[in-house]
Amino acid sequence: MNASDINLPDVLSEVQAAFACYEDALVNNKVEVLDELFWNSPTTLRYGATENLYGYDEIRAFRASRPSQGLARELLVTVITTYGRDFATANCEFRREGAERSGRQSQTWMRTPEGWRVVSAHVSLLG
Amino acid sequence: MNASDINLPDVLSEVQAAFACYEDALVNNKVEVLDELFWNSPTTLRYGATENLYGYDEIRAFRASRPSQGLARELLVTVITTYGRDFATANCEFRREGAERSGRQSQTWMRTPEGWRVVSAHVSLLG
Repeated sequence: MNASDINLPDVLSEVQAAFACYEDALVNNKVEVLDELFWNSPTTLRYGATENLYGYDEIRAFRASRPSQGLARELLVTVITTYGRDFATANCEFRREGAERSGRQSQTWMRTPEGWRVVSAHVSLLG
Repeated sequence: MNASDINLPDVLSEVQAAFACYEDALVNNKVEVLDELFWNSPTTLRYGATENLYGYDEIRAFRASRPSQGLARELLVTVITTYGRDFATANCEFRREGAERSGRQSQTWMRTPEGWRVVSAHVSLLG
Protein backbone atom coordinates (compact mmCIF):
# COMPACT_ATOMS: atom_id res chain seq x y z
CA MET A 1 0.00 0.00 0.00
CA ASN A 2 1.31 3.44 -0.93
CA ALA A 3 0.20 6.98 -0.22
CA SER A 4 -1.50 7.09 -3.64
CA ASP A 5 -3.87 4.33 -2.52
CA ILE A 6 -5.22 6.43 0.34
CA ASN A 7 -8.74 7.85 0.20
CA LEU A 8 -9.66 6.86 -3.36
CA PRO A 9 -12.80 8.99 -3.77
CA ASP A 10 -15.26 6.22 -4.67
CA VAL A 11 -14.02 3.97 -1.86
CA LEU A 12 -14.12 6.81 0.65
CA SER A 13 -17.73 7.57 -0.33
CA GLU A 14 -18.69 3.96 0.27
CA VAL A 15 -17.16 3.87 3.75
CA GLN A 16 -18.60 7.26 4.68
CA ALA A 17 -22.03 5.88 3.80
CA ALA A 18 -21.44 2.73 5.85
CA PHE A 19 -20.23 4.81 8.81
CA ALA A 20 -23.30 7.07 8.59
CA CYS A 21 -25.54 4.02 8.51
CA TYR A 22 -23.83 2.68 11.64
CA GLU A 23 -24.13 5.99 13.48
CA ASP A 24 -27.82 6.25 12.67
CA ALA A 25 -28.35 2.68 13.85
CA LEU A 26 -26.41 3.33 17.05
CA VAL A 27 -28.26 6.43 18.24
CA ASN A 28 -31.61 4.94 17.24
CA ASN A 29 -30.80 1.50 18.69
CA LYS A 30 -31.46 -0.34 15.44
CA VAL A 31 -29.91 -3.51 16.81
CA GLU A 32 -30.41 -5.56 13.66
CA VAL A 33 -28.46 -2.99 11.62
CA LEU A 34 -25.65 -2.86 14.19
CA ASP A 35 -25.49 -6.65 14.13
CA GLU A 36 -25.37 -6.67 10.34
CA LEU A 37 -22.55 -4.11 10.15
CA PHE A 38 -20.21 -6.11 12.37
CA TRP A 39 -18.50 -8.94 10.52
CA ASN A 40 -19.94 -12.30 11.56
CA SER A 41 -16.68 -13.97 12.54
CA PRO A 42 -15.15 -15.37 15.74
CA THR A 43 -12.22 -13.00 15.12
CA THR A 44 -14.38 -9.86 15.30
CA LEU A 45 -13.73 -7.95 18.48
CA ARG A 46 -15.14 -4.93 20.32
CA TYR A 47 -13.59 -3.18 23.30
CA GLY A 48 -16.35 -1.03 24.79
CA ALA A 49 -16.13 1.58 27.52
CA THR A 50 -16.84 -1.03 30.20
CA GLU A 51 -16.51 -4.43 28.50
CA ASN A 52 -14.21 -6.50 26.28
CA LEU A 53 -16.12 -8.57 23.74
CA TYR A 54 -14.42 -11.34 21.74
CA GLY A 55 -16.17 -12.73 18.69
CA TYR A 56 -19.35 -11.81 16.88
CA ASP A 57 -21.57 -13.80 19.26
CA GLU A 58 -20.43 -11.88 22.34
CA ILE A 59 -20.97 -8.58 20.53
CA ARG A 60 -24.46 -9.57 19.44
CA ALA A 61 -25.39 -10.73 22.95
CA PHE A 62 -24.20 -7.38 24.33
CA ARG A 63 -26.33 -5.44 21.83
CA ALA A 64 -29.38 -7.51 22.66
CA SER A 65 -29.11 -6.79 26.39
CA ARG A 66 -28.15 -3.12 26.17
CA PRO A 67 -30.57 -0.46 27.50
CA SER A 68 -32.05 1.44 24.58
CA GLN A 69 -32.09 4.80 26.38
CA GLY A 70 -29.38 7.49 26.47
CA LEU A 71 -27.72 6.52 23.21
CA ALA A 72 -27.92 9.98 21.60
CA ARG A 73 -24.58 11.61 20.99
CA GLU A 74 -22.96 14.40 19.05
CA LEU A 75 -19.99 13.71 16.79
CA LEU A 76 -17.25 16.27 17.44
CA VAL A 77 -14.54 15.03 15.07
CA THR A 78 -14.76 12.27 12.46
CA VAL A 79 -11.80 10.96 10.46
CA ILE A 80 -12.42 8.23 7.91
CA THR A 81 -9.44 6.92 5.93
CA THR A 82 -9.45 4.24 3.24
CA TYR A 83 -6.39 2.19 2.22
CA GLY A 84 -6.71 0.71 -1.24
CA ARG A 85 -10.16 -0.61 -2.10
CA ASP A 86 -10.85 -3.07 0.73
CA PHE A 87 -9.81 -1.51 4.04
CA ALA A 88 -10.63 1.55 6.08
CA THR A 89 -10.42 3.03 9.54
CA ALA A 90 -13.10 5.28 11.03
CA ASN A 91 -12.32 7.27 14.14
CA CYS A 92 -14.46 9.84 15.90
CA GLU A 93 -14.73 11.88 19.05
CA PHE A 94 -18.23 12.19 20.48
CA ARG A 95 -20.10 13.59 23.43
CA ARG A 96 -23.26 12.23 24.99
CA GLU A 97 -25.85 14.67 26.30
CA GLY A 98 -24.85 15.86 29.76
CA ALA A 99 -21.58 13.92 29.77
CA GLU A 100 -18.50 15.62 31.19
CA ARG A 101 -15.94 13.60 29.27
CA SER A 102 -15.84 13.11 25.54
CA GLY A 103 -15.61 9.65 24.04
CA ARG A 104 -13.58 8.15 21.22
CA GLN A 105 -14.70 5.43 18.82
CA SER A 106 -12.27 3.57 16.55
CA GLN A 107 -13.38 1.06 13.93
CA THR A 108 -11.55 -0.99 11.32
CA TRP A 109 -13.75 -1.70 8.30
CA MET A 110 -13.25 -4.39 5.65
CA ARG A 111 -14.98 -4.96 2.31
CA THR A 112 -16.71 -8.34 2.26
CA PRO A 113 -18.88 -9.98 -0.41
CA GLU A 114 -21.90 -8.72 1.59
CA GLY A 115 -20.62 -5.14 1.90
CA TRP A 116 -18.42 -3.16 4.30
CA ARG A 117 -18.19 -4.65 7.79
CA VAL A 118 -16.51 -3.68 11.09
CA VAL A 119 -13.86 -6.25 12.05
CA SER A 120 -12.52 -4.47 15.14
CA ALA A 121 -13.82 -1.65 17.33
CA HIS A 122 -12.73 0.22 20.44
CA VAL A 123 -14.80 2.76 22.36
CA SER A 124 -13.59 4.64 25.42
CA LEU A 125 -13.89 7.85 27.39
CA LEU A 126 -11.00 10.29 27.37
CA GLY A 127 -9.19 9.91 30.70
CA MET B 1 -12.10 -10.50 1.54
CA ASN B 2 -13.43 -13.88 2.59
CA ALA B 3 -13.02 -16.09 5.63
CA SER B 4 -10.35 -18.09 3.78
CA ASP B 5 -8.15 -14.98 3.63
CA ILE B 6 -8.01 -14.69 7.41
CA ASN B 7 -4.81 -15.50 9.28
CA LEU B 8 -2.72 -16.83 6.39
CA PRO B 9 0.14 -18.38 8.40
CA ASP B 10 3.04 -16.50 6.82
CA VAL B 11 1.25 -13.16 7.06
CA LEU B 12 0.24 -13.81 10.65
CA SER B 13 3.87 -14.60 11.54
CA GLU B 14 4.99 -11.30 10.04
CA VAL B 15 2.47 -9.26 12.02
CA GLN B 16 3.15 -11.18 15.23
CA ALA B 17 6.83 -10.26 14.83
CA ALA B 18 5.99 -6.60 14.17
CA PHE B 19 3.69 -6.54 17.21
CA ALA B 20 6.41 -8.09 19.42
CA CYS B 21 8.88 -5.51 18.16
CA TYR B 22 6.44 -2.73 19.06
CA GLU B 23 5.78 -4.14 22.53
CA ASP B 24 9.50 -4.41 23.26
CA ALA B 25 10.03 -0.85 22.08
CA LEU B 26 7.13 0.39 24.19
CA VAL B 27 8.16 -1.07 27.52
CA ASN B 28 11.80 -0.15 26.93
CA ASN B 29 10.96 3.32 25.60
CA LYS B 30 12.81 2.83 22.31
CA VAL B 31 11.27 5.97 20.87
CA GLU B 32 12.95 5.67 17.47
CA VAL B 33 11.44 2.20 16.98
CA LEU B 34 7.99 3.38 18.05
CA ASP B 35 8.28 6.27 15.61
CA GLU B 36 9.34 3.93 12.83
CA LEU B 37 6.46 1.51 13.39
CA PHE B 38 3.78 4.17 13.04
CA TRP B 39 3.07 5.05 9.41
CA ASN B 40 4.47 8.46 8.53
CA SER B 41 1.28 10.01 7.20
CA PRO B 42 -1.01 12.89 8.17
CA THR B 43 -3.84 10.32 8.26
CA THR B 44 -2.22 8.24 11.00
CA LEU B 45 -4.05 8.64 14.29
CA ARG B 46 -3.63 7.59 17.91
CA TYR B 47 -6.20 7.89 20.67
CA GLY B 48 -4.30 7.47 23.94
CA ALA B 49 -5.65 7.08 27.45
CA THR B 50 -5.52 10.85 28.00
CA GLU B 51 -4.92 12.40 24.57
CA ASN B 52 -6.18 12.38 20.97
CA LEU B 53 -3.34 12.65 18.44
CA TYR B 54 -4.03 13.37 14.77
CA GLY B 55 -1.26 12.78 12.25
CA TYR B 56 2.20 11.28 12.51
CA ASP B 57 3.78 14.54 13.68
CA GLU B 58 1.51 14.84 16.74
CA ILE B 59 2.22 11.22 17.64
CA ARG B 60 5.98 11.72 17.33
CA ALA B 61 5.88 14.88 19.44
CA PHE B 62 3.96 12.98 22.13
CA ARG B 63 6.53 10.17 22.19
CA ALA B 64 9.39 12.64 22.47
CA SER B 65 7.87 14.34 25.52
CA ARG B 66 6.64 11.25 27.33
CA PRO B 67 8.20 10.27 30.67
CA SER B 68 10.31 7.15 30.21
CA GLN B 69 9.42 5.64 33.59
CA GLY B 70 6.54 3.32 34.48
CA LEU B 71 6.08 1.85 31.01
CA ALA B 72 6.39 -1.80 32.04
CA ARG B 73 3.24 -3.83 31.56
CA GLU B 74 2.01 -7.39 31.38
CA LEU B 75 -0.01 -8.58 28.39
CA LEU B 76 -3.10 -10.47 29.59
CA VAL B 77 -4.77 -11.28 26.26
CA THR B 78 -3.43 -10.69 22.75
CA VAL B 79 -5.46 -11.25 19.57
CA ILE B 80 -3.79 -10.62 16.23
CA THR B 81 -5.83 -11.16 13.07
CA THR B 82 -4.70 -10.74 9.47
CA TYR B 83 -7.02 -10.12 6.52
CA GLY B 84 -5.48 -11.07 3.19
CA ARG B 85 -1.81 -10.17 2.85
CA ASP B 86 -1.77 -6.43 3.59
CA PHE B 87 -3.95 -5.73 6.62
CA ALA B 88 -4.14 -6.75 10.23
CA THR B 89 -5.59 -5.80 13.58
CA ALA B 90 -3.78 -6.33 16.88
CA ASN B 91 -5.71 -6.05 20.12
CA CYS B 92 -4.53 -6.71 23.63
CA GLU B 93 -5.48 -6.34 27.25
CA PHE B 94 -2.67 -5.29 29.56
CA ARG B 95 -1.98 -4.36 33.16
CA ARG B 96 0.67 -1.98 34.43
CA GLU B 97 2.43 -2.80 37.69
CA GLY B 98 0.27 -1.71 40.61
CA ALA B 99 -2.58 -0.54 38.40
CA GLU B 100 -6.12 -1.35 39.51
CA ARG B 101 -7.71 -1.22 36.08
CA SER B 102 -6.60 -3.16 33.03
CA GLY B 103 -5.95 -1.41 29.76
CA ARG B 104 -6.84 -2.22 26.17
CA GLN B 105 -4.72 -1.45 23.09
CA SER B 106 -6.08 -1.67 19.55
CA GLN B 107 -3.96 -1.21 16.46
CA THR B 108 -4.64 -1.44 12.74
CA TRP B 109 -1.54 -2.50 10.81
CA MET B 110 -0.88 -2.09 7.07
CA ARG B 111 1.85 -3.53 4.86
CA THR B 112 3.87 -0.72 3.27
CA PRO B 113 6.95 -0.85 1.01
CA GLU B 114 9.02 -0.26 4.17
CA GLY B 115 7.33 -2.99 6.21
CA TRP B 116 4.30 -3.30 8.48
CA ARG B 117 3.14 -0.02 9.99
CA VAL B 118 0.43 1.07 12.45
CA VAL B 119 -2.09 3.36 10.74
CA SER B 120 -4.52 3.74 13.65
CA ALA B 121 -4.29 3.04 17.38
CA HIS B 122 -6.50 3.38 20.44
CA VAL B 123 -5.42 2.82 24.04
CA SER B 124 -7.73 3.12 27.04
CA LEU B 125 -8.43 1.85 30.53
CA LEU B 126 -11.42 -0.38 31.11
CA GLY B 127 -14.11 1.77 32.73
